[in-house]
Amino acid sequence: MFRSFGVPDEDAHTAAEVLHYADIHGIDSHGVARLHTYFDMLALDRINPKPIIAIVRETASTATVDGDNGLGLVVGPRANRIALAKAREAGSAWVSVCNTNHYGAAGYYTTELARDGFIGWSMTNTTKLVAPLWGRERMLGTNPISIAFPAGDEPMVIVDLATCAAAYGKIEIARRIGESIPAGWALDSEGRQTTDPHRMVNGGALLPLGSERDQGGHKGYALAIAVDVLCAVLSGANWGPFCPPFALRQHVPDRSVGKGIGHFFGAMDVGGFIDPAEFRAQIDELTRVLRATPPTPDVPSDIKGPLIPGDPERAARTEREQHGIPLVGPVVEELRDIAERTGIDLPHPLD
Amino acid sequence: MFRSFGVPDEDAHTAAEVLHYADIHGIDSHGVARLHTYFDMLALDRINPKPIIAIVRETASTATVDGDNGLGLVVGPRANRIALAKAREAGSAWVSVCNTNHYGAAGYYTTELARDGFIGWSMTNTTKLVAPLWGRERMLGTNPISIAFPAGDEPMVIVDLATCAAAYGKIEIARRIGESIPAGWALDSEGRQTTDPHRMVNGGALLPLGSERDQGGHKGYALAIAVDVLCAVLSGANWGPFCPPFALRQHVPDRSVGKGIGHFFGAMDVGGFIDPAEFRAQIDELTRVLRATPPTPDVPSDIKGPLIPGDPERAARTEREQHGIPLVGPVVEELRDIAERTGIDLPHPLD
Repeated sequence: MFRSFGVPDEDAHTAAEVLHYADIHGIDSHGVARLHTYFDMLALDRINPKPIIAIVRETASTATVDGDNGLGLVVGPRANRIALAKAREAGSAWVSVCNTNHYGAAGYYTTELARDGFIGWSMTNTTKLVAPLWGRERMLGTNPISIAFPAGDEPMVIVDLATCAAAYGKIEIARRIGESIPAGWALDSEGRQTTDPHRMVNGGALLPLGSERDQGGHKGYALAIAVDVLCAVLSGANWGPFCPPFALRQHVPDRSVGKGIGHFFGAMDVGGFIDPAEFRAQIDELTRVLRATPPTPDVPSDIKGPLIPGDPERAARTEREQHGIPLVGPVVEELRDIAERTGIDLPHPLD
Repeated sequence: MFRSFGVPDEDAHTAAEVLHYADIHGIDSHGVARLHTYFDMLALDRINPKPIIAIVRETASTATVDGDNGLGLVVGPRANRIALAKAREAGSAWVSVCNTNHYGAAGYYTTELARDGFIGWSMTNTTKLVAPLWGRERMLGTNPISIAFPAGDEPMVIVDLATCAAAYGKIEIARRIGESIPAGWALDSEGRQTTDPHRMVNGGALLPLGSERDQGGHKGYALAIAVDVLCAVLSGANWGPFCPPFALRQHVPDRSVGKGIGHFFGAMDVGGFIDPAEFRAQIDELTRVLRATPPTPDVPSDIKGPLIPGDPERAARTEREQHGIPLVGPVVEELRDIAERTGIDLPHPLD
């Protein structure tokens, strides 16, 4: 699909790899379910299929990259590799990116770096959905943070979280099936907490991680701002309510304060701090110690006890590598639509 | 007080400055209220008053510092300045610290760097208090993160948050005055949510930021692990449940996996990414845009509307610079005790 718009082969391959990372790890919202949106944006020339990605400012351990309005799935991996290359020389490095678009799952980038033995960092800002503390309008994105740490015999520790209390996708699902949502997720358009998904969707807002003030909502709000600043203010991209939308159906802000959306990538050489073998051994031991915590009475029956960040995605991967990636009907319909419009053959068993 | 134990003049001054930062900014739990604990630790030779603080490993943009079991209030500022000096050369820099002790308020370090025009980062691990997701025992500290961004005409944006839902100190206060605590703060010793502060204090645990799974508790848990790894695993300090306690009355873990507790400091040169004047102008505008968000109906009467991270501390500072720092009775008693035991005159009006 990407190649049909003139995206160079290598870039198309990378973009597909980023989407596959999400699908194989059970992050269904960030994989092939979004392919039609990328298709729409490319078809309407809203995304540049052949960007000239350039470093516009740099020091030994920092850089700002202009993504030339390319696919985030192409600009992101390029900027991530720049962070890695610089960190190999300087011990650590950070790349802030402007003029880019939706980059897929944050964890793709950090696991790439952790596989090379580095501590990987990745963040992006996103279209506004989240209310600030004591505000009733959508002003900030779900602004995710991922950090991955290499391990030894145990699997990597992969932190990957949006800085809101719950994903918008979960509210969408509750709305479709007519269920209420848990307390702490959302405000209605008046700025009152609601458990009715319709009231959030119709002009309400997501609450930040921590929900309201008493439970620590000011903390999630502060983290969302930090992500916005590092991705967008630092790179010259649009921040806060001016971050352009990912999908066509979403409202385009009237005002622009920069170029496209923003990402932020970091790489730290473990060997710049400690013997990497010692680090990996201690991460393994930390993992084993946390897993051995006596469980609460309400541990779900399908898990064994306390989890390590990255466990749910690894469990999904094991399952999906064996049994395939399940696609819901509407996604299959979207893939069929792309196939019809581009003349690309659908792979078996979708054909 | 510090000098009476042989802490060099300059170090004693720095330590007092870090405590003063907390008191003047309304962070009462981290200021002079802790002076007696530092006194106890020094009096029992549990903290080294004259540490030889050394870089034990480094690259252009990274370093590991061994604090020689000095006061965190002395080791922390030294390591923070190493991060700044390295970032001036390399564009950004990170310092992980082992063999150190309680370092005061995380925000002290980051505002120091932001005052110099850098983005400041600061984290520390702390004595175990927080349960992992689906675990019922204390395994992680409250592991705070601070990030400060320099601004132009508007005040700095200062993110400063513990990665737990609510501070242990708030639960202690509720217990003393016989009130219940809000849902989402704590587990009892069986691993069930409780609103009874006694049940948390007696063998229960704090919940991470986000509380339980439905509200995003797995996110706060993941952030607490990330802080622990960066501060302690990366530096060779004790992590997780093996982090030594700050105060004498607290249990010392039976097992040691490293040296002392750990901190992590970072400095990023804004000019390594973007024109600093442009950055400051955009931070100012971000601040104004967020403040202008229409408020929710439940905004407390003493604030004007949506806040910016750092606002509550600034409000406290304005108030306290004018009217002084109020001290509760038990803290005054502790200061009197120190005065008696050391022969130091208490300043007016405490004398």
